[in-house]
Amino acid sequence: MFSDEEYQFLTSARIARLATADGEGRPHVVPICFAVVDVPASESPWITTPIDEKPQQVEPTDLQRVRNIRENPYVALVVDRYVEDWDRLGWVHVRGRARVLDPTTEGHNSGVSALRGAYTQYADHDLDGRPLLRIDPGSVRSWGHLDPFE
Amino acid sequence: MFSDEEYQFLTSARIARLATADGEGRPHVVPICFAVVDVPASESPWITTPIDEKPQQVEPTDLQRVRNIRENPYVALVVDRYVEDWDRLGWVHVRGRARVLDPTTEGHNSGVSALRGAYTQYADHDLDGRPLLRIDPGSVRSWGHLDPFE
Repeated sequence: MFSDEEYQFLTSARIARLATADGEGRPHVVPICFAVVDVPASESPWITTPIDEKPQQVEPTDLQRVRNIRENPYVALVVDRYVEDWDRLGWVHVRGRARVLDPTTEGHNSGVSALRGAYTQYADHDLDGRPLLRIDPGSVRSWGHLDPFE
Repeated sequence: MFSDEEYQFLTSARIARLATADGEGRPHVVPICFAVVDVPASESPWITTPIDEKPQQVEPTDLQRVRNIRENPYVALVVDRYVEDWDRLGWVHVRGRARVLDPTTEGHNSGVSALRGAYTQYADHDLDGRPLLRIDPGSVRSWGHLDPFE
């Protein structure tokens, strides 16, 4: 699914942007904290992001991205680097399908572990008791310089 | 349309992420260089981005974002700041409609000027002879700390 270079670029990044669209195809895009969930070599890794990692004014299931995914599971996610030297730009674009993982669902524990491994900030967040998004990549494209983030 | 704080946040940013969706509602998201085009106070400012500001492997009109906009004009754009101190995160989210401005179209010159004003890198790009995207904001939401970028 991912080349080694794409994998390193994704897993060293601190932020991605997730695009969803509602049932009428109107897009929405948000910055997300995320983690790649490693799986046995026979399976494809998936990507997870908490639904409510930051203070939000609404219940998790009312968030636009969640309503969109329930109407339309297709999502796209981009990780990129911007620098003023445009010869060094790069990005990885992932298209796939997303679904909500409720806390009792298979995979939820793996998602929480991956997120806590990536972000010390999650130590005191109640990830265990809240839903996550699971994104199963369907296609990956990349462009430019994909040196890992420092 | 934009509060002063949102306007400063947008116009001081170096990069945004633009989400489009195809006719079937499948999203796509790309990092973009962009500029806010100022207009008389009686009108709403619009946002522009070149279609081909970076080396691309395909003709401008074949790019996914352009094909999507021709099928479905709805777009969303986010400008955000990521820092490890999550109390200082912030974003501005703009939803609107986009269309392609060919070089002979009204507004193309204003778009080119705004982009050249924002990015010295465009000095030697042939923006004048290439299409731009024009995004007319329909709604704006923001969250968190919107200190301007330095």
